[in-house]
Amino acid sequence: MEKFFYPQSVAVVGVSENPANLARGIISNLREFGYQGKIYPVGPRGGNIYGFPILSHIKDLPESVDLAVILTPARYVPQVVADCGRLGISQVVVESAGFSELNEAGRALEEEIRGLLKKYRMRLVGPNGLGLMNMETGLSLPFAEVRPLPRKGRISIISQSGGVATHLLAWMHQEGLGLNKFLSLGNKLDVAENEALAYLLTDPGTEAIYLYLEGLRDGRELMSLAKKATKPIFLHLVNVGPETAAIGQSHTASLTTDERVLEAACRQGGMVRIKSQGEFLVGAKMVGQPPVKGSRLVVLSRSGGEALVAAYACRRWGFKLPPLSKELVVLIQERARAGVIKPTNPIDFGDIFDFTVYSEVMAALCRDSEVDAVLFHYGPVADFEVEPARQMARHLIEQARTAQKPLAITVLCDLKEEEFFRETLGTPVFHFPEEAVQALALSRYLAARGEVQELEKSFGRGGQWVWPPAPSPKPSPPTPYGVIEGPGAEKISAILDQAPPGEFLPLPQALSLIAALGIPVADWQTASSLPEALAAAQRLGFPVVLKLVAPSLLHKTEAGGVLLDLKDAAAVASGFAKLATVVQKHLPAGESWQVLVMSQATGGREVLLGAKQDPAFGPVIAFGAGGVDTEVLEDVALRVAPLNTPEARAMLAETRIGRILAGIRSQPPADLAALSVALLALSQLMLNFPHITEVDLNPVRAFPGQPGILTLDARIRVGERQA
Amino acid sequence: MEKFFYPQSVAVVGVSENPANLARGIISNLREFGYQGKIYPVGPRGGNIYGFPILSHIKDLPESVDLAVILTPARYVPQVVADCGRLGISQVVVESAGFSELNEAGRALEEEIRGLLKKYRMRLVGPNGLGLMNMETGLSLPFAEVRPLPRKGRISIISQSGGVATHLLAWMHQEGLGLNKFLSLGNKLDVAENEALAYLLTDPGTEAIYLYLEGLRDGRELMSLAKKATKPIFLHLVNVGPETAAIGQSHTASLTTDERVLEAACRQGGMVRIKSQGEFLVGAKMVGQPPVKGSRLVVLSRSGGEALVAAYACRRWGFKLPPLSKELVVLIQERARAGVIKPTNPIDFGDIFDFTVYSEVMAALCRDSEVDAVLFHYGPVADFEVEPARQMARHLIEQARTAQKPLAITVLCDLKEEEFFRETLGTPVFHFPEEAVQALALSRYLAARGEVQELEKSFGRGGQWVWPPAPSPKPSPPTPYGVIEGPGAEKISAILDQAPPGEFLPLPQALSLIAALGIPVADWQTASSLPEALAAAQRLGFPVVLKLVAPSLLHKTEAGGVLLDLKDAAAVASGFAKLATVVQKHLPAGESWQVLVMSQATGGREVLLGAKQDPAFGPVIAFGAGGVDTEVLEDVALRVAPLNTPEARAMLAETRIGRILAGIRSQPPADLAALSVALLALSQLMLNFPHITEVDLNPVRAFPGQPGILTLDARIRVGERQA
Repeated sequence: MEKFFYPQSVAVVGVSENPANLARGIISNLREFGYQGKIYPVGPRGGNIYGFPILSHIKDLPESVDLAVILTPARYVPQVVADCGRLGISQVVVESAGFSELNEAGRALEEEIRGLLKKYRMRLVGPNGLGLMNMETGLSLPFAEVRPLPRKGRISIISQSGGVATHLLAWMHQEGLGLNKFLSLGNKLDVAENEALAYLLTDPGTEAIYLYLEGLRDGRELMSLAKKATKPIFLHLVNVGPETAAIGQSHTASLTTDERVLEAACRQGGMVRIKSQGEFLVGAKMVGQPPVKGSRLVVLSRSGGEALVAAYACRRWGFKLPPLSKELVVLIQERARAGVIKPTNPIDFGDIFDFTVYSEVMAALCRDSEVDAVLFHYGPVADFEVEPARQMARHLIEQARTAQKPLAITVLCDLKEEEFFRETLGTPVFHFPEEAVQALALSRYLAARGEVQELEKSFGRGGQWVWPPAPSPKPSPPTPYGVIEGPGAEKISAILDQAPPGEFLPLPQALSLIAALGIPVADWQTASSLPEALAAAQRLGFPVVLKLVAPSLLHKTEAGGVLLDLKDAAAVASGFAKLATVVQKHLPAGESWQVLVMSQATGGREVLLGAKQDPAFGPVIAFGAGGVDTEVLEDVALRVAPLNTPEARAMLAETRIGRILAGIRSQPPADLAALSVALLALSQLMLNFPHITEVDLNPVRAFPGQPGILTLDARIRVGERQA
Repeated sequence: MEKFFYPQSVAVVGVSENPANLARGIISNLREFGYQGKIYPVGPRGGNIYGFPILSHIKDLPESVDLAVILTPARYVPQVVADCGRLGISQVVVESAGFSELNEAGRALEEEIRGLLKKYRMRLVGPNGLGLMNMETGLSLPFAEVRPLPRKGRISIISQSGGVATHLLAWMHQEGLGLNKFLSLGNKLDVAENEALAYLLTDPGTEAIYLYLEGLRDGRELMSLAKKATKPIFLHLVNVGPETAAIGQSHTASLTTDERVLEAACRQGGMVRIKSQGEFLVGAKMVGQPPVKGSRLVVLSRSGGEALVAAYACRRWGFKLPPLSKELVVLIQERARAGVIKPTNPIDFGDIFDFTVYSEVMAALCRDSEVDAVLFHYGPVADFEVEPARQMARHLIEQARTAQKPLAITVLCDLKEEEFFRETLGTPVFHFPEEAVQALALSRYLAARGEVQELEKSFGRGGQWVWPPAPSPKPSPPTPYGVIEGPGAEKISAILDQAPPGEFLPLPQALSLIAALGIPVADWQTASSLPEALAAAQRLGFPVVLKLVAPSLLHKTEAGGVLLDLKDAAAVASGFAKLATVVQKHLPAGESWQVLVMSQATGGREVLLGAKQDPAFGPVIAFGAGGVDTEVLEDVALRVAPLNTPEARAMLAETRIGRILAGIRSQPPADLAALSVALLALSQLMLNFPHITEVDLNPVRAFPGQPGILTLDARIRVGERQA
């Protein structure tokens, strides 16, 4: 990627003198941004553009260039790419549209180009994008005019849509946020998000990344990049779920992933999931400031009302407003006229016109290690105040910067003052207290990864952002459960080998597989006749459960195929007869069936353990409230596999049923260790046998005050085995 | 209030020629806003201000005035108020600070003024506020400069904080939102929010109200005003919960209400609860447009990426993107170059430069009754497009206005274009698709009160806004349960008469009260000795439960004072012995105790029914998941009493346990009617006996497939009885 962002020379192919020519916009941008490398316009009609001669063919270049930008009609692109390849130009940006996003012919063009890239060992950004920008060098390759010119700054953008990115650029300018690098992915024919992200994560100029995607190339890799990242990644992924899936396919070609899986992946990867550009603009305003390391915030305000709005926001976003230090209390009491400022937090500066008091208070806050961040509601109340207030603000910012104290500023009343901060001080400001507190909370969250619990509790999934609550205080190795091997693994393989692809395993096989995996299953036995069933029940001990097993019977409870709490032989006999009538009613004539006799578990709580393959993130593990109410309870935690023990324990703690099983009030805890080991086993199963598409253990019983768990039902589906 | 907003003449007391004089700012504002009534500055030093002579005393007025504005030091205010009273000036606005918000002396001044208001039959706005504005007449009474001048429009503001209100005014201007009337409540010495709101709800110039409060004077009245309102009320109440309570008291004097009660009250009242000024600015942009009557949205976009962002937002906010009508499909196929626009929704106009196509498409959408709203992502892509694109936008807005089709506009890329919409077309625009869809959803929600279920389901309490989901499709009379009377009422009164204030009723009395209320209670009997307990158990039938009853034993389960599932006499005997040891261990020596023997209920589900007195909203009723897990499950619905049957049923449906009890999968429903009647009974109890502060029936059992419910435990607390 370095060569894409830092070329010494650029050829732009497709330029003409025609005012409607799009590629000339690229030359114009390079000039406007002050690009100092060499620029070679290329176009068959020749001529001159912005003082550069237009070469009529790329072969006419006087030297090889580091980068070629192509904006010709799509059908000519393969030829130009091939020419570049022959000339040894190894970085190509294609901005032309008309490829796979349009039709099959376009897709074929992409295939052709892919072959050329391989042949000539070239790399390509695009097609159907806006290329790159690098504010460090003035490289600016979009064909569309970029206005206003971005400020140079700390934020880099990777975007699959040119429109979304340029719209955001305009807003970043408006909000005083500076750009460092910009990459428009387009159709992701070659360079895709993960490679670009990996580069920007090591790029010294980039301190935060906005990543707009309409689909994921490799969600697992994205997650693992994000896990290692030390910079905030704001992920704006919109192609999730049915409404967007249809349009997503015409716009780019992306599989749809599940919203909840995406949430889990973001949380595990430590990415900030945003759902609107507006959320990014708020969070990005703290980029470049020292991290907020705790929950103790002091609010300085020139408006009592705004102070109260901030205090309310603090409660929502997990901040405390601790009492002021003794030093500060004394200072305020000495310096302020009697009764005008109370030494409370928020500090209401409403009637203080002596700005030296502000600086003295700020100095005391900067010295105070018990203060984690300062929120300042700034606003001159009269014309004569404007200039001194600005000087005071400038000084406060310097004080905070020197002391490495995070400082968020909200400008009250006069919006012209916002401009002063952006343009003169180079500091973005917040429009309202809520936004400032929200951004401070995000900073705190990113700094504290995994140690902040309150925010989760206060907001859970309800918050505006999906927070990245790193899974464990200390990262642990991912597979403590180890590889599945020995007789268990052989048994699992043997069962899966006989499984019909795309269908559910018969219940006995599913239960055997789970038992082979080491997850406890209630005792059971199959029976093909009443005497066999009676013998089985006798052996297992009463009460028992009877379950009808037949290939076509998927919803056995609804069909009446599950009979609970059969206390004696007579009950088993009448139950068996009942199941025979269910067979007559629900099964196709001649279908073979069995009865599974299972020891009845009493007491305890029903939970669900599950797993499924996600198209973007691979195997995902689920834990939650089980039983017949599962769907209504909506009490499920998800994690992308592999899990480690702290992650499995965190899954339990994330659910209500998990918190209940941990022991509340007078109830003793259930065997959380056994549940956690079972989740790890499922995780390993999915990794070892990737053709398993779905596992659903529901119910599994856990028993408050008793060791062990018991699986009572299991559904396992197997897909096509990959070669 | 009419006289406050529409005075023909205004006296301003406290004016001087001194440039630092604050009251002169009021005269300045009246001039700037073009107030046409008579203006009389008053101040002891006399002189001239902005061409008006300053009268040295209010007694020097040549005529009585409709309104006097006072901005003198607080200590002089009572005298001025008295002078006004004697002169027959019945409307007074006090902007001075230094009253109850400052100290006890200030509170005494307020008391003095309150006496004068009564004596002279005067009304007062303030003190410690910014007065009023009315854009219809140019009345503008704030002493602070209001800049920029608000646009005249449809939104009115009631605010308890001057700072919050003026900050919002600046932003409304920035966002193209017009003001109609403005009222700064200050300390609410006389005029408070409900009176002002009632006026604005009938004011023809006001189409929506922003209401910023730091405390509620009478929450029930606010709710009942809101229920009858046909205009959206955006309630921004920040003094909720502990963090803000402390500062709230110094800022204004307000009792704290519970966050969840406030949410319930907003939902019942149909108010839009906002937590930040930013949320208001988004929602207010649809004010003045026809209501969105359904979920069918069509998106027109010049950016494919923004279209996808919009589609994603639609899914979040409950909109569907239906396929285009046949007419529109044909139109697009005829008019567009082959393959450039696909006849899908969103319609991607990326490459269409012929703006007549836009108008034709818009015309077809306007004709289409199957389209509930249109979202248009506007953006010229090059300089030569700007003028024709603006004309097209103007035409589209006219088309939509004529056809009464709700239209939300987002401006892409170039923020200067936003200004064109605000300044030239007088239309606010949205910054990002998410915001536009959110505002459309709010419009739909307000239009459909009580008939839109999806939004609730999608977002629940997690959404950014608290939606007003009106409780029932058709309003019903509030108290179908009727007044509690007859022997039941007498029994309840008798029990309450003997209750020690501030304490919990003994369990036998609590259970008797609940039974007298008509809510079924499990059979029980008290026993003071083992033989009595055995006899009781015999009579009730095994199994039974034993509960230790003693005044000082509040958490009987934790203390081991509840023994379940005693199957025979021997179990009761050993249980009784166990309770005796609990008595020794946990009770103070000599405290009297009893054992309550209760018939053991088996099967069914545990729910909670409760009630409490809220300081702002009065009695509040609760229903939710019960049993020992209540706190962890967080599955509770609240309503402000009185309830009606549809509201009680809605409470059940709002909880997970309620949905389970309604019957899911193969489970039959429980007796929802009995639960609902019990909630109505609690509602009536709280209204009839307002000195009951708290009722907690937990658990109450409901039985899937069986009629009836059974109360197993009850805690009732009684407060001081009011005279």
